[in-house]
Amino acid sequence: MKNSYPYDRLLKRFERVATINECASVLGWDAAAMMPVGGGAARGDQLAILAGLAHAQLTAPEVADDLAAAEALPASPDPWPAANLRLMRHAHMRATAVPADLIEAQARANSKCEKVWREAKSAANFSLVRPHLTEVVKLVQQQAVALGEGLGMSPYDALMDGYQQGIGASDVASIFGAYENFLAENLPLAEQRQAKQQAPVKPPGPFPIATQETLCRRVAQRIGLDFDHARLDRSAHPFSGGTPTDVRITTRYDLADCSQSIMAVIHETGHALYERGLPRAHARQPVGEAAGMGIHESQSLIVEMQACRTDEYLDWLGRSLHAAFGGDPKHYEVENLSRLWRRVERGLIRVEADEMTYPAHVIMRFRLERAMVSGNLSVADLPGAWNAAIKDLMGLTPPNDAVGCLQDIHWYDGAFGYFPSYTLGAMAAAQLMAVAARQIQGLKTAMGLGDLSPLINWLKANVHAHGSVMGFNELLTAATGKPLDPTDFQAHLRARYLS
Amino acid sequence: MKNSYPYDRLLKRFERVATINECASVLGWDAAAMMPVGGGAARGDQLAILAGLAHAQLTAPEVADDLAAAEALPASPDPWPAANLRLMRHAHMRATAVPADLIEAQARANSKCEKVWREAKSAANFSLVRPHLTEVVKLVQQQAVALGEGLGMSPYDALMDGYQQGIGASDVASIFGAYENFLAENLPLAEQRQAKQQAPVKPPGPFPIATQETLCRRVAQRIGLDFDHARLDRSAHPFSGGTPTDVRITTRYDLADCSQSIMAVIHETGHALYERGLPRAHARQPVGEAAGMGIHESQSLIVEMQACRTDEYLDWLGRSLHAAFGGDPKHYEVENLSRLWRRVERGLIRVEADEMTYPAHVIMRFRLERAMVSGNLSVADLPGAWNAAIKDLMGLTPPNDAVGCLQDIHWYDGAFGYFPSYTLGAMAAAQLMAVAARQIQGLKTAMGLGDLSPLINWLKANVHAHGSVMGFNELLTAATGKPLDPTDFQAHLRARYLS
Repeated sequence: MKNSYPYDRLLKRFERVATINECASVLGWDAAAMMPVGGGAARGDQLAILAGLAHAQLTAPEVADDLAAAEALPASPDPWPAANLRLMRHAHMRATAVPADLIEAQARANSKCEKVWREAKSAANFSLVRPHLTEVVKLVQQQAVALGEGLGMSPYDALMDGYQQGIGASDVASIFGAYENFLAENLPLAEQRQAKQQAPVKPPGPFPIATQETLCRRVAQRIGLDFDHARLDRSAHPFSGGTPTDVRITTRYDLADCSQSIMAVIHETGHALYERGLPRAHARQPVGEAAGMGIHESQSLIVEMQACRTDEYLDWLGRSLHAAFGGDPKHYEVENLSRLWRRVERGLIRVEADEMTYPAHVIMRFRLERAMVSGNLSVADLPGAWNAAIKDLMGLTPPNDAVGCLQDIHWYDGAFGYFPSYTLGAMAAAQLMAVAARQIQGLKTAMGLGDLSPLINWLKANVHAHGSVMGFNELLTAATGKPLDPTDFQAHLRARYLS
Repeated sequence: MKNSYPYDRLLKRFERVATINECASVLGWDAAAMMPVGGGAARGDQLAILAGLAHAQLTAPEVADDLAAAEALPASPDPWPAANLRLMRHAHMRATAVPADLIEAQARANSKCEKVWREAKSAANFSLVRPHLTEVVKLVQQQAVALGEGLGMSPYDALMDGYQQGIGASDVASIFGAYENFLAENLPLAEQRQAKQQAPVKPPGPFPIATQETLCRRVAQRIGLDFDHARLDRSAHPFSGGTPTDVRITTRYDLADCSQSIMAVIHETGHALYERGLPRAHARQPVGEAAGMGIHESQSLIVEMQACRTDEYLDWLGRSLHAAFGGDPKHYEVENLSRLWRRVERGLIRVEADEMTYPAHVIMRFRLERAMVSGNLSVADLPGAWNAAIKDLMGLTPPNDAVGCLQDIHWYDGAFGYFPSYTLGAMAAAQLMAVAARQIQGLKTAMGLGDLSPLINWLKANVHAHGSVMGFNELLTAATGKPLDPTDFQAHLRARYLS
């Protein structure tokens, strides 16, 4: 029986770790949404202390003993404690694989590099940050090797595993290769088709911020967010944070454009509802957490891209927007909004990309970071390699590095292995939606009323409630009958942009 | 030398403790000002974990060894490390004096009692909470005995010491006895004098909340709060929290009355500026912290009561209010505002009391809680004893316990020994102001322009910058030439209400 004494002690310990991480999550939200600028230095120390305390809990000598003792007992027939113990072992391996002095060196190097990156980006001058990124990559290589040895994985897989367990670089490489071929063939076709259509009109606004905020709140609520357990605030970059019983989403408002704030809220609401739907019976246990960043992204994208950019939902949203902001009703008709908000466009900037070209941004980053981690690409050669890759994938040449290899914070903050999650999420979202659309009666009718509850209930039952009792492909198989199948995403794009 | 190895280790450890406490402080602010109701249960766990982690840092076996080793070295000629080491020893004694199971029992009992108190207060039914308060008091008695043994103090003194070091119950008892006599003689005189004056007019409002908020922010800023290191938000009860480089003050707004929000902001700004003015060179060291809750209250009250209720400041404030809200200018003239906001009035409710009768509320609580801690007053007898005390001090009889012994959260949350700090603060504020007014050139002229910087700079130099390198009476002696002298407060009241 797994619920013997050592397992109970482990539960208690992981509950402590999760609670410390909750503190860090709320403080992270505060730093982005509330904190005055002068609080930054102290907040950095606070988060570092919490990270250290959580790490110390995971690496305490008793953990290894308790894990060994719990594993020595006959496995429980209940999949939850069995998965829990597996995930505890996994977390312990990750925490103990990297020496403490390397962790500290990384914290210092990442923090320094991230600061300099801000200057380098605003000066469009990669050389400013090159030595710092070189140091960051050197330490990431050491981290990846150490993690890989501990986990029995290749170094880059070990980094990916930190964001999404259960899918490796070789799987991703082949999925991405196929998508590259798909894109080479279909992006020109989508562009040709689009060129023949009437150009959409951007509603001219202005869009009073207070009205946007009220509408965003209403939209999030109607999608399913309960503000007894949530907040909506502002930050420079929209994100979802907080804790499962107290989720905090943010957006940003532009007086001249209401689409940014609303689409960001819709996206973050998808993330937030996933956290809200995690199994409460396993709260603060590894098995009660989200199943990884790829799955997390699938839950935001199924709401934002799969559901809320359908004609049905856009019809409701357009009417709501017109009721809120007035102006020419033509601008808010689904014929216009669908052409405006379902538009493919080659661009240099990942975060502004449409759903068809977004994976291209991810694919090139995946290849470049994998090459940096393996040592096949030096940091000095990054700008050239970046520009070659985006030229190759989209035929574009960045005028400077600020809109090239300096655009994303990730690498400069030490995050390698995260980028694939975005596209894995987009693909998983399409695959889940294909099945949900078949299984849910009245889905389109409800969406036409702005009501996503049928979809959210389906996601709760088929994704959220499972926590991480299953891995990436297991979860997809349970929900859709097959592991990740990238052709569902291609079919979605064909239906939306080519037919 | 005190900065040898064990002392450095202690510095590092206390820095860790302070940083954990900073996390708790921001999360506490969030709970009161931001958190959706559904986050309450998880937040309770988060704060409990942080308290446990901080406590574990203080009680680790190495601390005793390092303290002993550091203390065995020749004392530093520099008073800061010497005081620091003394305060570390003190913190360690407090942390180790109380057994862990008693701390846990208190956390549970206090939390339960506080919840039931809310019901009991809204039902005006003391008997609901009586058994819970009985349990709380029983555990507080045990805590007080344990602390008293560790610190070599009487049990009640050991509780007081947790809020304000350096002043004990016997000092307070004689100070309070003298004040009781002062009040018996002078409150009727003040009332008679007031009765002969024209009654003040409450400006009728309404006072739009957004305008109040803008004005509150401007007032706080003009007093000296830098919003690069501060926030102003709303909460059910105004408070000051956060950390020295990121202070968070709150207030509440009433559409029908602007005085509440503004006076609360002025008060909390005084607290906030004290935190902002603490010595940065000793940040996160015991000696760099505030010198106790009595001194803290003196810093809010010197701003709110001593400075901002003078004719000079009210003249500026009245003009600012009229500029913001319009209406009859007569209402905002200093002649009216001074009678409105410097008014003595016998009342049942402590938090609504004026500065002359406020100490009476504190005095009776001090006597009642001291009697409960010593066992001379049983919880069952509290309502009767309360009603007798307020009858005796102010000639009033509460119609029910909601406006009697159920009005304050303190005891029901396990806080015994805190109440004296309010009046010690009021008295210290008067004493500091008497000297500041003599030493600062142009103080009144500046106050007439809403500018408190001369006073704040004086407080920074004479109070804030000293952290807790000196005790309560030492600090007052350094700033004013004498230890706490309650006659300064009496003189202030005579000048304001009797002459």
